[in-house]
Formats: sequence, C-alpha cells, structure tokens
Amino acid sequence: MDYSKVLQEIKEEIVTFKNTGKVATYIPELGKVDPSKFGVYLQCTDGSGYGLGDALDRFSIQSISKVLSLSLALKLKGKEVWKRIGVEPSGDPFNSLVQLEYEKGIPRNPFINAGALVVADILISELKNPKEELLQFVRDIAEDQTIDYDENVAASEMMHKFRNASLTHLMKDFGNIHNNVDDVLDFYFHQCSIAMNCKQLTQAFTIFLNYGKYDLSKEAAVLDTMLAKRINALMLTCGFYDESGEFAFSVGLPGKSGVGGGIVALHPKYYSIAVWSPPLNKNGNSELGMKVLELLTSKTEISVF
Amino acid sequence: MDYSKVLQEIKEEIVTFKNTGKVATYIPELGKVDPSKFGVYLQCTDGSGYGLGDALDRFSIQSISKVLSLSLALKLKGKEVWKRIGVEPSGDPFNSLVQLEYEKGIPRNPFINAGALVVADILISELKNPKEELLQFVRDIAEDQTIDYDENVAASEMMHKFRNASLTHLMKDFGNIHNNVDDVLDFYFHQCSIAMNCKQLTQAFTIFLNYGKYDLSKEAAVLDTMLAKRINALMLTCGFYDESGEFAFSVGLPGKSGVGGGIVALHPKYYSIAVWSPPLNKNGNSELGMKVLELLTSKTEISVF
Amino acid sequence: MDYSKVLQEIKEEIVTFKNTGKVATYIPELGKVDPSKFGVYLQCTDGSGYGLGDALDRFSIQSISKVLSLSLALKLKGKEVWKRIGVEPSGDPFNSLVQLEYEKGIPRNPFINAGALVVADILISELKNPKEELLQFVRDIAEDQTIDYDENVAASEMMHKFRNASLTHLMKDFGNIHNNVDDVLDFYFHQCSIAMNCKQLTQAFTIFLNYGKYDLSKEAAVLDTMLAKRINALMLTCGFYDESGEFAFSVGLPGKSGVGGGIVALHPKYYSIAVWSPPLNKNGNSELGMKVLELLTSKTEISVF
Amino acid sequence: MDYSKVLQEIKEEIVTFKNTGKVATYIPELGKVDPSKFGVYLQCTDGSGYGLGDALDRFSIQSISKVLSLSLALKLKGKEVWKRIGVEPSGDPFNSLVQLEYEKGIPRNPFINAGALVVADILISELKNPKEELLQFVRDIAEDQTIDYDENVAASEMMHKFRNASLTHLMKDFGNIHNNVDDVLDFYFHQCSIAMNCKQLTQAFTIFLNYGKYDLSKEAAVLDTMLAKRINALMLTCGFYDESGEFAFSVGLPGKSGVGGGIVALHPKYYSIAVWSPPLNKNGNSELGMKVLELLTSKTEISVF
Repeated sequence: MDYSKVLQEIKEEIVTFKNTGKVATYIPELGKVDPSKFGVYLQCTDGSGYGLGDALDRFSIQSISKVLSLSLALKLKGKEVWKRIGVEPSGDPFNSLVQLEYEKGIPRNPFINAGALVVADILISELKNPKEELLQFVRDIAEDQTIDYDENVAASEMMHKFRNASLTHLMKDFGNIHNNVDDVLDFYFHQCSIAMNCKQLTQAFTIFLNYGKYDLSKEAAVLDTMLAKRINALMLTCGFYDESGEFAFSVGLPGKSGVGGGIVALHPKYYSIAVWSPPLNKNGNSELGMKVLELLTSKTEISVF
Repeated sequence: MDYSKVLQEIKEEIVTFKNTGKVATYIPELGKVDPSKFGVYLQCTDGSGYGLGDALDRFSIQSISKVLSLSLALKLKGKEVWKRIGVEPSGDPFNSLVQLEYEKGIPRNPFINAGALVVADILISELKNPKEELLQFVRDIAEDQTIDYDENVAASEMMHKFRNASLTHLMKDFGNIHNNVDDVLDFYFHQCSIAMNCKQLTQAFTIFLNYGKYDLSKEAAVLDTMLAKRINALMLTCGFYDESGEFAFSVGLPGKSGVGGGIVALHPKYYSIAVWSPPLNKNGNSELGMKVLELLTSKTEISVF
Repeated sequence: MDYSKVLQEIKEEIVTFKNTGKVATYIPELGKVDPSKFGVYLQCTDGSGYGLGDALDRFSIQSISKVLSLSLALKLKGKEVWKRIGVEPSGDPFNSLVQLEYEKGIPRNPFINAGALVVADILISELKNPKEELLQFVRDIAEDQTIDYDENVAASEMMHKFRNASLTHLMKDFGNIHNNVDDVLDFYFHQCSIAMNCKQLTQAFTIFLNYGKYDLSKEAAVLDTMLAKRINALMLTCGFYDESGEFAFSVGLPGKSGVGGGIVALHPKYYSIAVWSPPLNKNGNSELGMKVLELLTSKTEISVF
Repeated sequence: MDYSKVLQEIKEEIVTFKNTGKVATYIPELGKVDPSKFGVYLQCTDGSGYGLGDALDRFSIQSISKVLSLSLALKLKGKEVWKRIGVEPSGDPFNSLVQLEYEKGIPRNPFINAGALVVADILISELKNPKEELLQFVRDIAEDQTIDYDENVAASEMMHKFRNASLTHLMKDFGNIHNNVDDVLDFYFHQCSIAMNCKQLTQAFTIFLNYGKYDLSKEAAVLDTMLAKRINALMLTCGFYDESGEFAFSVGLPGKSGVGGGIVALHPKYYSIAVWSPPLNKNGNSELGMKVLELLTSKTEISVF
C-alpha cells in the first residue's frame, strides 16, 4: 500500500471540506489554539513514516492520555484494575454522573472521565512519584525525552475542576477513590495537559501494534500480547464517547480522541496514525480528524473488519 | 493454523467447565430444550470445515436473526436505514424502554429489540411477501433450502408479546413504525423462530467474510464490501447487549448471540464459527459459548485486534 | 366570604391576561374546541353556587375522570388498590415509561396515565358492565342523569392509542394488567371522553367535601371520611403532573386538571370549584384556569395551608 | 379537642409497636444515640402545650433545619430564591445526582440536599456572619437563646462530606453555587448539626401557624402570610423525600423529617408537633414518628384535608 499517495489524495479532497466544528473553550488555554492547524502522521510497521501539515506541532493530548495511563496501570496491577472499572461502552456523555450513581461508583470503562480518574487514583497509589513516572513512561514509549506537561493547561483545568470534582467525590463516597480528591484531580489534569505532536503520538501508540511486539528496543514499555489486544478492543468500543459506534462503523479502527483536537488510531498489523485539527463536532471529537480517518480506511479498504 | 487440533483442545478443556447458566424459559417452547446440548462448527475461508458435538442439531436462532434481517434491509434500502436506527452501543438491557423514550423512538442500534423491530417494519414495507422472502434470503445465504420457521416457537412468542408490543407501540407513537403493530410483531417473532444448526449458521455468515466476497456462487446474497465491514463493526460493538464490551475485550471478534443459546462469530479474513449451548449467563448470552470463543482466540492468538 | 364578589373581581382582572397556552391537538376531536371558551362554577358547602361565563357548556373532562374512577375503585376494593399503584408524586411527565420500567410496572400514583390504566383494569375486573356502571356512578354523584360519554372523542383517542398502548403492554408484561389490553384502553378512553360542564363537575366533587359527608342524599356515592381525605391528599400531591408542586405552592388546594382545559379544585371545608379554558400551558394544564385559582386563594386568603 | 387525652391513648397504643427501623450510622456521631429515646411535644395555637417522654432531650435536627434556613432565605431574598431552586417533588432519593444533572443544576425543591445546599449558598452571600446569624434566627423563633450547633456532629459530617461535595461541585459546574464549595458545606453541616428538643422545635415552627401570625412577640421572625402558606405547601409535597406522598396520604399534614429521628408537623390552624425516635425506616424517616403522627390525625380526624 502506497500510504504516501493515499495521504496526498486525502489532502486534496479535504480542501473543500466545510468544517462546522468548534474549538473547545471550556478552559481558556485550549481556546487559544489556531483552529486552522492541521497535521497528520502515519507510522507503518515496516518502519516507514509519512507526515502532512503541522505534524510536528505540539498540542494538548487531553483524553488521548487515558490510553497511556491505562496501559501503565495495567502493566503495574494487571487484572486488579478491572475490579474497579468496567469494559462496557457507556451510552452516555463522557462526563455523566447518572450511570455512575446507578452503578454505585464503578465507571463503565477507563475512557470516560470517571474511569480515567480511577486509573489516576490507582497510579497515585502504585507509584512513588506519580507525575514524574507517568511522564517518563510516555517519554519512553514515544522515544522522545522532551515531551512534557503544559503547566498552564493543567492549572487552567484545575480552576475549572467542578464537574470532575463532582465525579471524583461521588466515587469516593462509593469507596472507589482511595486517595485525596484534589491529588487525584491534580494528577489527572497534568496527564491531560501533556503536549505532543502527531509524530510522537504515533510512536507512542506503536506499543499496541503487532500485539505489542512491534519494537523490542522499547523493552520496558512493551505490553504483553493479550494486554495490547484488549486495549485495542477497548479503544474500538469506547474510544469516542457516544460516537464510538459511529467511529467503528465508519472508520473501523481502534482509536482515541481528545478535546485538544487530536485523534490517534491504529491498525494492529499495519500502522498507527495521528490526526490533529482543533474544531470539534458536537460529540467532542475532531470533525476533520474523523473525516480524514474515514477517507483513509475507505480508500485503502483496510480496517480491522 | 490447525483449527481441528485447536477445537479438540477446547473440547477437552471444557469437560471441567462448571456451567452456572440457565436455559431461557420466558416462553415454554424454549424451555423444552436439552440443556446439555453442545455443538460447534467452524468454516474456514479456505473451504475446510470442522464440526464438534451437536453441530447438526437445529435450534431457535432467536436474536442471531437480527444480523440477517438487517443485511436484507441494507441490501434493499441502503443508508436510508440509518435515518430510523442508530449505530451506537446502548449501555442498557436489550429490551429497555428508557433510552428509547429519551431518544424519541430512534433505537440505538439494530441489535437491540427496538432496532430489530424497526428493521422488521422496513422489510414489511419493502417486500411483497415479507415472511417468504426473508426465509428465502436465509436459505440462499446458508445454501440450504430446508431451513424453516418454527411455528410453535413463533406462536408461543406471540402469546408473550407484551414487552415487545410495548416497545413497538412506543415507536409507533414517535412515528418510527409505519405498519400495523401486530403485523410487525408477527414478522419479528417468525424471524426469531428460524431453526438452524451450527453448520448452516456458519454458511450464512460467510457473507461477512473477506468483505462479503467469499463465495461468488451466492451471487444474489453477496454484500457490498463496505456493507459487510459495517455490519461486522456493529456486531463487535453491539452484538452482545450489555456484554458487548466484554466480548470485544475477551474474544475480540464480531459476533451475535441469541437466547436459544447460539452464538455466531467471525474473523473477516479466516473463518466464521457457530457455537450452541442453551444455558445463558445473566446477560442472556450462552455461558459455555462465550468460554469456547474466548479459548479459541486465546489459543490461536488471532483476533481482529 | 362573598364569593360572588371575589369571582367578579377575578373576571375583571383576567380581561388583560395574555394567554400563551395552546389547545390540545393530539386528537383531532379535542382540537375543534373554541379556545376562547371560559367558564367557572363554585359550589359552597352552605348550598350557594356561583357561575361565570360558559359554566354550563359541556367539555371533555379527560384526566379529571381519573379522580372519579379511583373513587369508585376504592369503594369497591379498598386498600387492595394500593398493592398495584403507589401514592408518590412521579417527578416525570404524565405518560413517561422510564419510571414505570425501573419500578417494575407499579405506577407511582393513580393520576398519571399508567396508574389510571391500572384503575381501569381493576374496574373491568370488578364490574359486570364496566362502562355503564362507571357512567352511572358519575351521574349519581353529579346528580345529573344526562351526563354521557362522547363516542367521537373515545373513538378518536383509540385511533391514537399508541403511547397508552405502550404503557399498558409494559404493565401487562410485569403482570400488573389482568384484562385484555384493548379492553382496558377502550374503557379508559371512554372514561376520559365523559362530557360535563363546570357546574356538574363541582357537584360531583362535593363527595370530597367535609370528609365526604356533604350531601347525604347521594347515599350510594358518599365516601368514607378517611377515603375522601386521602383522595384529597393525592390530588394535592399528584393532581397536576409535574406542576403539582407549583399548584400546591401557588394555589394551595387539592385539585385535578384535564387536557380538555378543565380544572377542578376544592377546599374540604368550604367549596368545590371548576374552571374551564381550553388553552394549555407547557405542562398540559389550563393556563387561565391555573391563574383563576391562584387569584381565588390569594384574594380569599383561604387555602388548606 | 383534648390533645392530652389523645397523646395518652397514642402512648398506650405504641407500647406494642414493633420498631424495625435502624439508627442512622453514616456518621459515627449520629450512631451513638440511644435508639429507645422517644419524645413528643404538641403546642396548640391557644397557648396550651403537651409533652411526652424525652420531649426535653436535645438531638440533632439534621434536615429539619432545611425549613428554617429556607425561611430565612425567603425573608432576605423573596422570590429571587425560586430562580435557583424549584418547588416540585423529586421522585428520587434525597441525595440523588441523576435529576440534578438532567435539570442542569437546578434542584427540584429546597428540601432535598441539593436544594438546601443552594439555600446555604444564598445565605452565605446575603449574611455578614452566616453561621452566627442563622443560629440567632433559630434561637429567636424558638425563643430559646441556649440553642447551639453541635461542633462534633458538624466535624463528623465534614469528614464524610463526599456525596454532598459531589452534589455541590456539580451545581457549581452549572453555575448554581456562587461561593467556595467547602464554605457551603461547612455552613450546611453546621446547620444540620443544630441540637434542639421537641419543645423547642414546636416553638420554632409556630411561625408557620395561622399564616405566620401566631405570635407577634417574635416580631423579627414572623413570616408574611403568603410565605408561611407556601412553606407549608412545600413541606406537604416535599418534606419526606420519596415518602412525601405517603405522609400526605396517611397523615395529611405539612411536616419535615431529619435523620436524627425527629419529625416536625403542623396544622396551620391548630398546632405544631414534634416527635423524636431515632430508628429510621428505609426511606430515612423515623419509623415510630410516622406512626405517632398517623395515629394523631386518625384519632382527631383533623388534617388539612
């Protein structure tokens, strides 16, 4: 497959794409981004890589970080994690309290906010220096030691913490948060603030390719075969909030989006890809990013299905 | 891959499996089945096929039929179908009215009862002799003209129609059912009553293999590439009610279960498989069937992820 | 208290009332009514009575009938009724299925549709000629043998039965409807179609005054003291769907509204009153009727509180 | 009416009452109370008063305080209060988040926790020394300057604040909490911790008798007629969480319960009454307290209905 050619075709087609999305503004720091930014990077298992546009600009990865924190938690605690978080699609918006109350503080899956907050709580309990060690894990799997938190974004999120504070207190009431609520929120907002570019994201997500065996040089980071497969399954069923079914249906790849406008997706056998375009559709996913990935699997006729 | 050997290993391992499931009894006809029945059939894309146990006994396919009726509706109406049914996991039990009311009569997906009832309504509108033509479609894709409705099961379902009648009337109130409610229920209960064995089911589901291009001899039945991929995506995200995430997570294949104890699953490149064991777990899926498929993808290390 | 003077004052004040309500049109028969119709009748326990406007025009009493059917059911079955219906405000719209599903087919109270359908089911089981005997009960307590069903309205409701059919089938699935669903709906739609004028309604509701001892000439109809008090309590907490709290708060009387634009209210010691004005507010209650009753208790400074 | 005799009869009847209730233990301080404690005090509008048992023992008034804080808020802000809180029964448990999320942070009524937290927020904004001034208001209307907060109870509640912190953060996210969350919780937990005996409670609640005109010596505290009536209406429709309908139905008086085992009720014309017995029924209301009040209105045949 000549991915370079496919990407060029996509680039030409989207020139006429009418973007009706809106940049996230719930925290001022995110609202400052240039809405016309657009980057793509595709990393193949054969070692070749292809970039387009602003593929080397860093942006706030936001919820994409949930896949990385989960991977670390699973490496540390294995199946224990699933006693405190489910693996089912939620059928509700990403920050809903309704289901969480009915289901007694056990989040449906690790990719809604409540689930990621429990993952954060687990990492705080397991790690000596939680923020440092998570960052090191991300740097290692992305093979780039310059990756860092964006303290302005993290601080801005903390000032608008109320919905997430509500979720965390509710779970604490049910006994499913073990640490101090503000510590959990501080860790979580830092994790979301990590700034990465499309290329770095595709590198990090190679740990989910070829059943986690893609690159043995990342020894410490490599995931057990079964673990990589399962995280892929979770991305496919739960990676796009209440648009997860639509993404599986239209694109047909495991993936994860963030409100910073990034989407990472992957085909376990062939490639990982990251797209970045800040304006979001009404479900909180990059509108142009979704389109690019739909074009990719339509043109290549390659998806996991 | 030597599937024959893998199936033998599985057969030996499950000898000690403690089945805590219960046969469905909400209609008397289903309750009469022998709970110790157990059959498996695996059909490879290379033409080879492997059977185990009661692979040639016919049973009530129940909700597995939802995949077949959807395929026919999509062949007839294409994308129009998605104006009346969504493609998102529901996060609720298969027969819940709650979401349907909040979402104004548009079912979340075609594999919950409400969605399948809308599919039935579409087929009644589109076909001259709906029951005859659906049956013919199933006979054609399964390449077996002896397949038939079980009138006793259909009649028994009609006598206990109340929950489904409630769903259908609610959608009719929202304008999403166009035909007479009892006609829709009669068609739907017939569709669920179709009796097939494991081998016939694997034959029928080959239309979803190799992007629907598996067997050109089934010309009339063959699905468009994109269509086959999308139905596979739907099976993966929505095929097992509120255990869909768990199935994707543990097994990693598109599939569909029925309360008759059958499960069909498939790997688009390699095979379709049907398992039958009547006792159901608390989510209404065959308990042993789930286990067999989990063993299959663990042993072969082949899943879509 | 000079109620005649109070009513005159109210009549003058509402001349400038801007009615933003809309006449119910979900069945064509109801939509035909003249929206400018306006009638009031107030019947005091001292025997005096006062009418205004179209107080002698008959209209469809609709949900006001739920109080009358409940009274008859309680006379016939006593406390048994409360095994199948609750006495709590619902906090949801009058025809919602959500709560009914969570609470396993037991309606919250007898004044939401689901509850009134169970009352209808009880009356069908208890009475030899249900429709005739309910009508006779209403004629007796209203002391007017000319009161009758409006067969056009009843037939029109039956043609648009879908939401109520959904509710009834759901309860039948839970075992809380004992008779044939269409028989229950036919009885219920007839009950709702009863045509009465404001004066007749105030007469009928005198059975709830002075603890049901108001007029011993209505011997057969008189309610036990405790029963009358309890029905009044139910009207106060549940009589106006999700505007019940507002009515208790602003008016402070037990009462019941209907989508025909009628409202009946009463002060157990002093009077029963009926108001009729077809345009409904967004909660399905007569907008002008609510205003008139609020003015009445404000001016007289008499309410149950 | 000889209330002394009625209370004696009730005292004799309840000797054989089998109490299946349980003392609240969600905070250790409440769990320490002697479950056999039992007190009643009835204060008539003619000035006479009757006590029984432990009527002079102080206990934690808990949610009964919600009526008092609301009264103060209404005196200070009038109708403005209703822009931020509704007046409808909730149909859900007292601390549910579900409805609050659907209804965008506007609590259904001031007697569920969310509503009382908004009232607390209003008082913090309006008062210079919120805790001191609320306490002074309570002392004034109860005519007893020894009434005080129980700092142990308040501190214990703060240590188990999680559910209420979740509610408050959620409302803050919706913009319906203006002050710091922990300040609101601190005020709220203090208000709940107020220790009063049955006699003091009946004195305080005389402000709701005779339309708030009972005792002009309490000049500062007296409520506007309309205000007193409306608070009575709210107590009747919303005073007992999801047992409010049952209380209106069985007792027929406005009232308010607290998890300390206290219940205050009143007949606007005749009396206020307080009952105290710590074991709670499954809805969080004093089991014996409910029984005593039911006997009272059955025996006297006096209720607002």
